[in-house]
Amino acid sequence: MSSKKELRIGMVGYGFMGRTHSNAYRRVGNFFPELEYQPILKAICGRNQERTQAFADQWGYESIETDWKKLIARDDIDAVDICTPNNMHAEIAIAAAEAGKMVLCEKPLARTVAEAQPMVDAIEKAGVPNTVYFNYRRLPSVTLAKQLIDAGKLGRIFHYRANFLQDWTISPELPQGGEGLWRLDNAAAGSGVTGDLLAHCIDTAMWLNGGIKDVSAMTETFIKERVHTGTGEKQEVTIDDACMFHCHFDNGSLGLFESTRYARGHKALYTFEINGEHASIKWNLHDLNRLEYFDHRDESQERGWRSIHVTDSDHPYMDKWWVPGLSIGYEHSFVHQIADFLKALGEGKPCSPTFKEAQETQKVCEAVLESAKAKSWKDTGVNW
Amino acid sequence: MSSKKELRIGMVGYGFMGRTHSNAYRRVGNFFPELEYQPILKAICGRNQERTQAFADQWGYESIETDWKKLIARDDIDAVDICTPNNMHAEIAIAAAEAGKMVLCEKPLARTVAEAQPMVDAIEKAGVPNTVYFNYRRLPSVTLAKQLIDAGKLGRIFHYRANFLQDWTISPELPQGGEGLWRLDNAAAGSGVTGDLLAHCIDTAMWLNGGIKDVSAMTETFIKERVHTGTGEKQEVTIDDACMFHCHFDNGSLGLFESTRYARGHKALYTFEINGEHASIKWNLHDLNRLEYFDHRDESQERGWRSIHVTDSDHPYMDKWWVPGLSIGYEHSFVHQIADFLKALGEGKPCSPTFKEAQETQKVCEAVLESAKAKSWKDTGVNW
Amino acid sequence: MSSKKELRIGMVGYGFMGRTHSNAYRRVGNFFPELEYQPILKAICGRNQERTQAFADQWGYESIETDWKKLIARDDIDAVDICTPNNMHAEIAIAAAEAGKMVLCEKPLARTVAEAQPMVDAIEKAGVPNTVYFNYRRLPSVTLAKQLIDAGKLGRIFHYRANFLQDWTISPELPQGGEGLWRLDNAAAGSGVTGDLLAHCIDTAMWLNGGIKDVSAMTETFIKERVHTGTGEKQEVTIDDACMFHCHFDNGSLGLFESTRYARGHKALYTFEINGEHASIKWNLHDLNRLEYFDHRDESQERGWRSIHVTDSDHPYMDKWWVPGLSIGYEHSFVHQIADFLKALGEGKPCSPTFKEAQETQKVCEAVLESAKAKSWKDTGVNW
Amino acid sequence: MSSKKELRIGMVGYGFMGRTHSNAYRRVGNFFPELEYQPILKAICGRNQERTQAFADQWGYESIETDWKKLIARDDIDAVDICTPNNMHAEIAIAAAEAGKMVLCEKPLARTVAEAQPMVDAIEKAGVPNTVYFNYRRLPSVTLAKQLIDAGKLGRIFHYRANFLQDWTISPELPQGGEGLWRLDNAAAGSGVTGDLLAHCIDTAMWLNGGIKDVSAMTETFIKERVHTGTGEKQEVTIDDACMFHCHFDNGSLGLFESTRYARGHKALYTFEINGEHASIKWNLHDLNRLEYFDHRDESQERGWRSIHVTDSDHPYMDKWWVPGLSIGYEHSFVHQIADFLKALGEGKPCSPTFKEAQETQKVCEAVLESAKAKSWKDTGVNW
Repeated sequence: MSSKKELRIGMVGYGFMGRTHSNAYRRVGNFFPELEYQPILKAICGRNQERTQAFADQWGYESIETDWKKLIARDDIDAVDICTPNNMHAEIAIAAAEAGKMVLCEKPLARTVAEAQPMVDAIEKAGVPNTVYFNYRRLPSVTLAKQLIDAGKLGRIFHYRANFLQDWTISPELPQGGEGLWRLDNAAAGSGVTGDLLAHCIDTAMWLNGGIKDVSAMTETFIKERVHTGTGEKQEVTIDDACMFHCHFDNGSLGLFESTRYARGHKALYTFEINGEHASIKWNLHDLNRLEYFDHRDESQERGWRSIHVTDSDHPYMDKWWVPGLSIGYEHSFVHQIADFLKALGEGKPCSPTFKEAQETQKVCEAVLESAKAKSWKDTGVNW
Repeated sequence: MSSKKELRIGMVGYGFMGRTHSNAYRRVGNFFPELEYQPILKAICGRNQERTQAFADQWGYESIETDWKKLIARDDIDAVDICTPNNMHAEIAIAAAEAGKMVLCEKPLARTVAEAQPMVDAIEKAGVPNTVYFNYRRLPSVTLAKQLIDAGKLGRIFHYRANFLQDWTISPELPQGGEGLWRLDNAAAGSGVTGDLLAHCIDTAMWLNGGIKDVSAMTETFIKERVHTGTGEKQEVTIDDACMFHCHFDNGSLGLFESTRYARGHKALYTFEINGEHASIKWNLHDLNRLEYFDHRDESQERGWRSIHVTDSDHPYMDKWWVPGLSIGYEHSFVHQIADFLKALGEGKPCSPTFKEAQETQKVCEAVLESAKAKSWKDTGVNW
Repeated sequence: MSSKKELRIGMVGYGFMGRTHSNAYRRVGNFFPELEYQPILKAICGRNQERTQAFADQWGYESIETDWKKLIARDDIDAVDICTPNNMHAEIAIAAAEAGKMVLCEKPLARTVAEAQPMVDAIEKAGVPNTVYFNYRRLPSVTLAKQLIDAGKLGRIFHYRANFLQDWTISPELPQGGEGLWRLDNAAAGSGVTGDLLAHCIDTAMWLNGGIKDVSAMTETFIKERVHTGTGEKQEVTIDDACMFHCHFDNGSLGLFESTRYARGHKALYTFEINGEHASIKWNLHDLNRLEYFDHRDESQERGWRSIHVTDSDHPYMDKWWVPGLSIGYEHSFVHQIADFLKALGEGKPCSPTFKEAQETQKVCEAVLESAKAKSWKDTGVNW
Repeated sequence: MSSKKELRIGMVGYGFMGRTHSNAYRRVGNFFPELEYQPILKAICGRNQERTQAFADQWGYESIETDWKKLIARDDIDAVDICTPNNMHAEIAIAAAEAGKMVLCEKPLARTVAEAQPMVDAIEKAGVPNTVYFNYRRLPSVTLAKQLIDAGKLGRIFHYRANFLQDWTISPELPQGGEGLWRLDNAAAGSGVTGDLLAHCIDTAMWLNGGIKDVSAMTETFIKERVHTGTGEKQEVTIDDACMFHCHFDNGSLGLFESTRYARGHKALYTFEINGEHASIKWNLHDLNRLEYFDHRDESQERGWRSIHVTDSDHPYMDKWWVPGLSIGYEHSFVHQIADFLKALGEGKPCSPTFKEAQETQKVCEAVLESAKAKSWKDTGVNW
């Protein structure tokens, strides 16, 4: 392995996303041995020293920091990976870029377009490699959808629809804020389901189907007050519990999006469907090894939705894993994103979605929230 | 059978709906032998004498008419069944009601709220039994959904979503207007997918989940011009090819609706889902013997969406048919509606949906079309 | 309708099968108006006069008989339809044939090969049109399977597997014998699941895949004693509650069959699958409007099981019913069989499966039961 | 991490199974940090030095060996993991046990019962911890099935059915023997689908449902000759391409098993279903995050097969991974088996299935092959 170039990672945040990213760094070399770069888990940074150390022990980080500014200041760190709550993304990313570090940031890029813009500016000014973890693109089934679309299989597109349904916040007893629950706290998260879930749907949609031009949205907060973990007091809930919108894509197709955490029976059911003149595609995250495909060019008596088990060696990324029929899981999407980042690094190319691209998704999220508030259509200003 | 009371039917129109209604009248006595009333196929009315006679022969109508006014004038007709294109509903229904006939009308009630209002008025003034064929309510799986909701199984409702997806008008070569294609002609149909498909979704939705208060909609006409069968000329297409809207229900839940005839791969995929605090329900027309049900009160490790094969004798209407596991089809929904109409007749009760109820659905359709045109929210004025 | 030839039906038995056959006779003219022959429900025969009359009233039979010999003796009967328990099939069929009547017999043909042989002989000697109600062949999805196989789509066949799973006899409290329960009484039925359920599987299998050469079987009776409705006493249960066998087809492929009434959760789950060199087919009765089809010749990345919703007008029989996407049900298989019988009658051709063909299925059933008893392989002697 | 006890692994074989085991060793510490033991990848052994070194580099083995006897002789190896073709299992396992090493052996235990017996004897004599990789038990969905059964949810069991369907050997051009294809060579594999695929089915079945008493089987070799990679000559194929059998379990239930590599459309479709008096369970490997469960005690109108997405934190093993709704994959079953082995090691307990238990599965496999050859029932001699 001596011929490998090291990419020394400093990660900020050791929550759920810290685990998924750490796992990706640790596995990528086993499954993508051809990569020139190999990640080294140099340091993990968190505010609680004891827990940060425990995380370092569990995942094999060489050292810990409790102040992210010190992490960024270290000479032995090449890339900063940001896994904090959303409200910390901007400050860390800008400082890291200014220090000449590569930056890998968990999605959404920031809480608002305004907050994200200096991040994009700093990254571009520094000219550092960067990426944002819209990881679902890298599931083999989703990448296969991209390939089918890019090959022109669907023809003119008429419809794109997506939803992301969860049910974990239905109980009014659930508090807001604090560890694991900052997603319910608008100050930390910037929004509710829009930034958390719809951002994924929007990123995938624009990747597959091009820019979203304008939107008309509705949001709702079903549970109006929750105890805040920070204060122990009941406080107004200011996130969106549910959000739905319709829109026009630049290519003339219509979009319909919905997200909620109040859809009883659905844990993390991200689905999308795209209807074209010749063919259609359906996908859902609960059955992520499958892609449903309908091709109208099949002989008429034999037409039907094909349930493709995306586990053959000629399916995207699948030559790296097992044998046909054997499934992979959620975490593999992160391994693939890291692999693509390392490959792009070796080739001197950008790794999509970059900060700049993620900012376009941010614009749609913001237009959606504004539209819902104003009860009117909004242009997104997206340039995809 | 001499103890049965006869209900002498005069039907106007012998197209697709004429067949479904005729079949229902012919079968209801075999499967609901307990009914006091039995329908007698007295007369069928159509403009083309030869084809009307052929239809009469095929379905066992005793006589034919080629002028619906004559049909209505006949003393030996108790009830008029209207299966014409939408633009004929009002005139016929009003005349029939004024002649003291019962009226059974295919949906949608009319092309517009304004057109429908005198129909409702005439029916109410005449005090005649009446019903509108929103037949999908009467599928056992859909009626089971209603029973579960009415029994309070779902608790507070958060979400209702429905779509009705077809793909039969994608080809630009398809003409508009004329027999079988009047649904593409705004003058005959009054609207495109909104009146044809969304009307079904809206009727079911309000039946299951109560009134729809306000809507925000978008429509699209993908193919701008088609040859008109009547003129042989290319003419502007003025129907909505696709329509989607979000809305508030009176009970505080959110609705999301979509309909299109450009969803490649879906022939007549009407689906709905309703998410409650405790339980959720999903349904689709392509698998109409099934109802999907998720109950959060199940033990946590064993929770899952239940695929209920709605073919047991304790399921709605199913004691009338075969044995558990043996499916019924689309046409049975009409048999059930006729059975319910005859039963209600015997009991002196109304058979839902009445003209008055169907007018509420009409109001939602109209608000949807107006909202799409105005690009703004519209109140529906629905009183459910 | 005056140009139609009448086929005057006398039916024996008014149980479950009496209803399915009666419905088929009543509907066939509405949906197959081109047929030269039209059935006339001349007489229904049952032992209980009152209930026979009620059935006649419900289904529109012109007259009743309480002695099937009188029915057969009537000059105004052209065809005898046998819906009795299995132990009555032979005597009635032989007498009917000898009286020159056409014979339509519910499956299985008889209780044993020995009992069936004189039936076949009598039919052949009389030269009367005849058929046996292995109705599942006539579901559009199953007929489509036949067409795909006959078109050579599957190539060399390797495997055929079928099962028929029910769960209605699990309770030990269920009695045997008597109305509705004669299927648990070996004297009336001749066997348990083998004649009742596997007979269907075997008929379909040989129709689709050719003759079955030899079998190795196992049977089981889980509940050893049940109260007999006739005597009121607990008696040994002598039917097979479950039966499974493997076999060789004449074409070299392997078969695997299973049937049981103790598969909790399955009401009437008849399934089959056939695996060929190039393509495979799957089907199940609970979703009878669908056929699953996998074609290895599809482009490798896009291969998947296609779920064909068999409701297009170019699917078998479906031009007679509704529009694409709209389902039909179980009973339609009987309408199709009657339609095919009437068509064959008009053309002077046999309507498969004939008595002679049904006797081949009987041979497999008997070999299966003998194999299970002897715990050894048995040749079937089938000549398909 | 200094407090951990090291378990120094020496692995023999670096094929497909070498990768799955290596991955498991590398990941177990990240996801099961509470374990007292941590595996150290001390040495990998293969005949080809260059490729062995490449594998060592890819997976982080500290050293390589090209002679397994040297590996076993090393003092710095605590446990030997055997990933070779089946014909090498016995010699290596016996030598390792005699050297006092723990032994983890890929399934099937050996080619025959006779070959396996001295392995079991050596292991028992040495008293070393041991396990055999019947990994599918450790999928959360399969372990959940075990828990439901052990909790008595199903009641008396009537039926167990399983099949394992593949389609990768249909082409007659595929050679036998050599790397990746030794599974087609009877000398190396000992049998075809019986040892490769049915062994899994049998292990799961006896784990869930108890011992298999006697069997009646059929095998087939569809392609009679294939080029042997070793000789370059066409040679007779002596493995079983397909195998099916029915059987009795000790608990009185009936079993039906089938395996083939000629089921077009199925890549690795291992399925099982178990039908009990009160409830039933279904599972398949292509959708391994799901378990289907039917409970007859549900209210009658609401009964249906529940599709349990086995990704909640109270599902087996799932507290170690992500959040509800996020899938895991095939390889996780190996991580779980290693975790269970390490846990058992810490507790001084055996880790099932042990060599002794795997020998019982071997007995069923052998009885199956003998039954097929003799065309008669065979007792298995299993003592579960």
